[in-house]
Amino acid sequence: MTQTFNAVDPRSGTAGAEFREAAPADVAATAALASTAFADPALGDDAARAALLRGAAARLRGAEAEVVAVAGAETGLPDARLRSELARTAGQLDAFAALLDAGDHVEAILDSPDPDATPIPRPDVRRMLVPLGPVAVFGASNFPLAFSTAGGDTASALAAGCPVVVKGHPSHPGTGELVARELRAAVAEAGLPEGTFAHLLAAGAEVGETLVDAPEIAAVGFTGSTAAGRAIADRAARRPVPIPVYAEMGSVNPMVVTRAALEARAEAIADGLAASVSNFGGQLCTKPGVVFVPAGAEGDAFAAALAERLDAVEPSVLLNRRVRDALAASVQALAARGDVEPLARPKAGDGAAGFDGYRHQPTAYQAPAAAAATGGDLLEEHFGPVVVLLRYGGEDELLAALGQLEGQLSAALHAQPDTDAALLATLTGVLAGRVGRLVYDGFPTGVAVCHAMHHGGPYPATSAPLHTSVGMTAIRRFQRPVAFQAAPAAVLPAALRDGNPLGIWRRVDGELSRA
Amino acid sequence: MTQTFNAVDPRSGTAGAEFREAAPADVAATAALASTAFADPALGDDAARAALLRGAAARLRGAEAEVVAVAGAETGLPDARLRSELARTAGQLDAFAALLDAGDHVEAILDSPDPDATPIPRPDVRRMLVPLGPVAVFGASNFPLAFSTAGGDTASALAAGCPVVVKGHPSHPGTGELVARELRAAVAEAGLPEGTFAHLLAAGAEVGETLVDAPEIAAVGFTGSTAAGRAIADRAARRPVPIPVYAEMGSVNPMVVTRAALEARAEAIADGLAASVSNFGGQLCTKPGVVFVPAGAEGDAFAAALAERLDAVEPSVLLNRRVRDALAASVQALAARGDVEPLARPKAGDGAAGFDGYRHQPTAYQAPAAAAATGGDLLEEHFGPVVVLLRYGGEDELLAALGQLEGQLSAALHAQPDTDAALLATLTGVLAGRVGRLVYDGFPTGVAVCHAMHHGGPYPATSAPLHTSVGMTAIRRFQRPVAFQAAPAAVLPAALRDGNPLGIWRRVDGELSRA
Repeated sequence: MTQTFNAVDPRSGTAGAEFREAAPADVAATAALASTAFADPALGDDAARAALLRGAAARLRGAEAEVVAVAGAETGLPDARLRSELARTAGQLDAFAALLDAGDHVEAILDSPDPDATPIPRPDVRRMLVPLGPVAVFGASNFPLAFSTAGGDTASALAAGCPVVVKGHPSHPGTGELVARELRAAVAEAGLPEGTFAHLLAAGAEVGETLVDAPEIAAVGFTGSTAAGRAIADRAARRPVPIPVYAEMGSVNPMVVTRAALEARAEAIADGLAASVSNFGGQLCTKPGVVFVPAGAEGDAFAAALAERLDAVEPSVLLNRRVRDALAASVQALAARGDVEPLARPKAGDGAAGFDGYRHQPTAYQAPAAAAATGGDLLEEHFGPVVVLLRYGGEDELLAALGQLEGQLSAALHAQPDTDAALLATLTGVLAGRVGRLVYDGFPTGVAVCHAMHHGGPYPATSAPLHTSVGMTAIRRFQRPVAFQAAPAAVLPAALRDGNPLGIWRRVDGELSRA
Repeated sequence: MTQTFNAVDPRSGTAGAEFREAAPADVAATAALASTAFADPALGDDAARAALLRGAAARLRGAEAEVVAVAGAETGLPDARLRSELARTAGQLDAFAALLDAGDHVEAILDSPDPDATPIPRPDVRRMLVPLGPVAVFGASNFPLAFSTAGGDTASALAAGCPVVVKGHPSHPGTGELVARELRAAVAEAGLPEGTFAHLLAAGAEVGETLVDAPEIAAVGFTGSTAAGRAIADRAARRPVPIPVYAEMGSVNPMVVTRAALEARAEAIADGLAASVSNFGGQLCTKPGVVFVPAGAEGDAFAAALAERLDAVEPSVLLNRRVRDALAASVQALAARGDVEPLARPKAGDGAAGFDGYRHQPTAYQAPAAAAATGGDLLEEHFGPVVVLLRYGGEDELLAALGQLEGQLSAALHAQPDTDAALLATLTGVLAGRVGRLVYDGFPTGVAVCHAMHHGGPYPATSAPLHTSVGMTAIRRFQRPVAFQAAPAAVLPAALRDGNPLGIWRRVDGELSRA
């Protein structure tokens, strides 16, 4: 019997279009097709894959109006955000195409033979990165475009030469199907095999589990909660052939405001923080969740200024009932603590009831930083437009609390480089040891897609601290090295041939060269 | 009560020196010291770590006579091999020091700010690799120097800036202690903290398990059997904070000999193969374990020539009783198959009895390749001086059997580039999909330590197909990226500062540059 589920408009809570739930048999067929595509030499052609990525980008731009309308109704995200996200999604497809044009992504390394090397002669050895195999991508609910069907995981896996099977997020099924339609068309137009890309929709867990277990799947990309990411990583580790799972999970993205920074620019920081906490319902992986603010009158004024700004924001539409309920429950638990104080005015609808659809009022709480110095739930994520200010007396109290942080995607430091020189150096050292990205005098939301970006971090921010899910180096997750020793010229890939016919950067006898 | 265990001379089976077994409490204290060392800025100084690596290399060379004598008595490996292995071990310590001199190992990437970027302005982002944290290294029995206490895992982890805790292999405890003595002295001479390096000896499993569980440990390097490597990887995956395990495990290192190659140079191939199978008791990770040889008279002559050469080799001393017993059992099971035929003359002592100490006669078996085309134990590793020839009729039979191979460290192809052009291309494609290194007209044993080397491969050859345990890129296993966004100049590491004060290669706005 075919199972179905419905899209839901979180602005009203009303059901929308009906979608067919994929079955485990669909997973097997899809994984087999992906495996066939992976074996097809066509997918090994960098130019064909660049054409696919550019074609998908152009098609998504062409479908903007349709995609934004459907995504808005499925996610409650505003049109301007969705247009921006679509531009980012198309932009990163184009950026990976440009990476393929440059050709350096294979990281070619060549060592000349040396018959006199000791203790043993050195043969001719040439090494490059090759694609890992078919990749399963789990779409995220909070970025229906940029971290979903044609998002960063899909773009980087396709760029690497890996077929992609997307497990679409049931919170935006229509958006996923639209994007998948454009991607499939781009695959065909680029002359690539059908199994290069597939999209499976399911509201239940079984399809995703079957996909992680499928023997053809060589790696998994995931963005979502720590619990779901860990479950997938654990499952993949139990396979007869374990595979890497690149899960980008939870983060409270700690922010530190120094006394000097408050004195210099409290209003500007409050403006930026309020926006970073409340924009798009605070449903960003890099939303600042805990902010360390000095105790005392200036800190009190800052807290009040922040609360005032959050009070002025309309209740945020959250992505779905599950997100709204989880936030309401976690905020209720937070507020019930004796050492936690609400900073915002009570409103009708607080506690998740009383608003239309699935909404939550952006809000702030505060607690003494000392209460977090022994760990515990003050340093846990509240996914949504909620921030906890942790008030610290001195640097020792600040450092003790920071010492309790688990691995994070990012941290932000608001300090005055001159007055705070020593503190800034200390904080940089402490935080660089437990986060993936340090932001100075800014906010971690709005992750730029560029070569240097690192959107990752130690566990539990991710399951794979060596890797990033945003930026050009995300491609490395889906590549493995192969070395060719004393190979005849005829069998060498072009990237490794004498004379460097591709004109790419290569490390030759230890030195980078494009000659 | 203190537990002890004894070294054993495998040449005679007699007990040698007594060693104290580490206790779980030693693990906790050692891991805590490693954590303290990791937090010490001294360890972040590339020059200090280069001095440590060079100091250790010089000290090992200085201790050669002592180390080789002890290692010979503990492993049965001949002096010439141990001197060569010591040279290799010292050489790779020096090579990682040179990598630190060059400075490119931090893979610096800088992107300039672009206020006009769409859909959002791009901030100043600078990213580099930083050390992951304290690393546990499990020494291998078969390379008492190059893959053990001061071997490739230790050298690359120290180069990355990670303290190392070695779980020494109980098969060569005295060798481990000697090497550890030199490493500890080099640590002190380089002015680095005591916890930079530690060595724990234990014959039981508990110390290793406690080490994998220690919260301070951030990654594990391992070389050994698939069963032990998988057990460690599984254990690490179950930790509250899972950590990466770089386990280099089993491999049969398939070799293909074409009909044309046999016609052209059967004797030379038989010479090389006999040496590659029998040298050092065949106890190398890259020993060719299965060789695909054409059916028919020329293949028969080749098989006979190989058997004759192996018959002429003296019985090999194996590393310890466990290795000898495991080999005897696996060979007995192999020989009991109805489709397997022994190629060597029966000798007194076959089946592991009748020799002094722990020895096994180098030997060969053969079976029809068709018998391997459905998988099964013909494609399993026999760790020691044993090779299985799989006789194939045509290319289809060859490809069907190759299609059953699991992930491998290496494969070797003996073919004639002109006559075999099409077959060579096909085999390259098939084998590149399941191995880490392809060797042409050569033998995979004798792994060169160089930039381009890849000593890794898909599971079960390793637990981490993206990484290598030999060669300069082995350092990447122990580094993770950190991005600095809009950071004040004062807090930026030198590698990321304006003007490139270190003069290293960096990717700046997408282009590699040393300016």
